[in-house]
Amino acid sequence: MIERISILGTGLLGTSVGLALRAAGFKGTIAGWNRGAEQGQVALKMGAIDALAADPVAAARESEVTVVAVPIYATLDLMEKLAPVLGEDQLVTDVGSTKEVIAEAGARLYNKPGRAAFLPGHPMAGKERGGAALAEAGLFRGAVWLFTDDPGAQRSAHAAALVMGWREWVTRIGAKTLDLDPERHDELVAWVSHLPQFTATALSALLEEKVGGAPELKDVGGRALREMTRLGASPYSMWRDIAHTNTEAIERALLALEQRLALLRENLRTPELRKQFEEANKFRQG
Amino acid sequence: MIERISILGTGLLGTSVGLALRAAGFKGTIAGWNRGAEQGQVALKMGAIDALAADPVAAARESEVTVVAVPIYATLDLMEKLAPVLGEDQLVTDVGSTKEVIAEAGARLYNKPGRAAFLPGHPMAGKERGGAALAEAGLFRGAVWLFTDDPGAQRSAHAAALVMGWREWVTRIGAKTLDLDPERHDELVAWVSHLPQFTATALSALLEEKVGGAPELKDVGGRALREMTRLGASPYSMWRDIAHTNTEAIERALLALEQRLALLRENLRTPELRKQFEEANKFRQG
Repeated sequence: MIERISILGTGLLGTSVGLALRAAGFKGTIAGWNRGAEQGQVALKMGAIDALAADPVAAARESEVTVVAVPIYATLDLMEKLAPVLGEDQLVTDVGSTKEVIAEAGARLYNKPGRAAFLPGHPMAGKERGGAALAEAGLFRGAVWLFTDDPGAQRSAHAAALVMGWREWVTRIGAKTLDLDPERHDELVAWVSHLPQFTATALSALLEEKVGGAPELKDVGGRALREMTRLGASPYSMWRDIAHTNTEAIERALLALEQRLALLRENLRTPELRKQFEEANKFRQG
Repeated sequence: MIERISILGTGLLGTSVGLALRAAGFKGTIAGWNRGAEQGQVALKMGAIDALAADPVAAARESEVTVVAVPIYATLDLMEKLAPVLGEDQLVTDVGSTKEVIAEAGARLYNKPGRAAFLPGHPMAGKERGGAALAEAGLFRGAVWLFTDDPGAQRSAHAAALVMGWREWVTRIGAKTLDLDPERHDELVAWVSHLPQFTATALSALLEEKVGGAPELKDVGGRALREMTRLGASPYSMWRDIAHTNTEAIERALLALEQRLALLRENLRTPELRKQFEEANKFRQG
C-alpha cells in the first residue's frame, strides 16, 4: 500500500533499510538523502535508494513514509524541520537508540490534527562500524524492532494505515516488533545494549593501556578477547547522543556492573564465585 | 620422530589435541585416559585416541610424550604421580591456564638428571563449554600456544629432542608458539583472558537479575549482547582453579576495570568519554 518512501540518512541503518525493503519485494520508490553526499552515492550504487535528494524536507514532502536514520540530535532537528511542512496523511518514523526525547518531540510536534503522524522506532541491529558500504539487506533478520508509540496520537485514517503498513514492512524485512513505553525502552536498552557497549569500550581502552604497545600480546587473548572487545571499535560519534540522552539509566547500569565486578573480585576464593558463575550460566540458558 | 603420545584428560582440549595431531598427519599411537570413562569413550569414537587406558600412570609410562589436559590442581596431582615413575627420556607437557604453580612443580619434580622433562604449555583456545563432544581438529588453528619453559632444565639429549618435536607438532596443528616466563604469563593472561571471562560472568549474572525473568527482553540485546555474554556460559568448574592460582593478578585486573567503568560513568557528558572511545578504537585497530 505504501508507494513512496524516503530515507533521510543513508548510513549503515538507512541503507540497510532500503536494501531490506527491496529484498522483501517493495515495489514503490525510495528516495534517499544524506548530509554528506558520498554516503548517499554509495547507497545509490548499492541499489538501496532510487534517487538521491538534495534536500531532506523536499524528499519527505513527496513521500508517504519518511524514515529518519541519523543520530539522535540530528533526528530531533529533522523532526522540527519536517513537522510544519508535512500533512496529516504522511508518516515519519525513526531508528534512534534512545526514545524518551524523540517520543516527547513526536507527541509535541506530530500526532495531532493537521500534523503528520510520528512513530518512534528502534531496530536492535547494527555493527561496530557505520557507513553505507557495510549495509546489508539481512541486517534486521531475527532482530527485534522496538516501537514506543504515542498512546495519545490523533491520526487521520490514512496516516493510521501508514503506521500499520510500516509495521508490516518491518516484519517482512525479518524483524520482530515489540512495543514498549519510552521510559521502559530507555531503561531496558541501558541494560541490554548500552551497558554491553560501554563495557566493551572500557575493557578495550584499559587493555590498550596495558598491552596495546605489543601487538603479539593481543593475539594471545584469542577469540574470547576479540569478541569481548569487538564493540570497542564503535566510534564516539555513534554513542555521544546516546550517552547524552540516556545518562541516568546508563549511570545506574555502569554502577551496578562496577559493584558486581567488585563482588567477584572479593570472592575469587569463596563459594560466592560459584554462585555468580551459576547466575551467569542461567542467563545463557534461560 | 615422536611415536607414542598419551593424552591424560580427554575433555575439549585433550580430545582436540588428538584430533588435531591426526589431521596434521601424526602416524604414531595416541593413548587416552580420562577420570570419567564416558568422555574417554567419546574421544575414542571420534578417533582422537587409539585406545583408552584404565590407568594414567601406566599410559604415561609407555609414552614418549604425555600431554596432561586436566584442570590445574588435577594437573599438579598427576605431575606428582608421574614424576617418580617416568624416565629421563620421556616428556610431560600440559595445557593449564595458569603457569606459575605448574612451572614451579615442573622445576621441582622434573627437568633434572634421572627425571623426565616437563614443558609447561598453554594453548589460548577453548570454548565456553567443555567436553570431548565439542572437540575440533581445527581448535588451535591461528591460536597462540604459550610455553613457559624452565631455563634451568637439565634434560637428556633424547628428552631435549622430544621438547623440540612437541613444539613442532604444536606448529603443525596450526598454533603460533610464544615463550614467556611463568610470572609474565600469569600477569598477561589475567588481562587478556581471565579479565574478559570474569567480565562476561559479571555482566551475565547482573543481567540475569535485571532481565532474566523475561526471555523476550534478552532478545532485544541482539548480537552485541549475545557476544558480550557468550562466556557467561562457562562453568565454575573450568574457572575455579584459575581463580585460586592467579588470584592477585585477577584482582588487579578487575579493580582496574571497575575504575575504568567508573571513569566512563562519571564522564558520560564530558570530552573524557570521547578520549576513552578513541583509546578503545586504537586497541581494535593497532
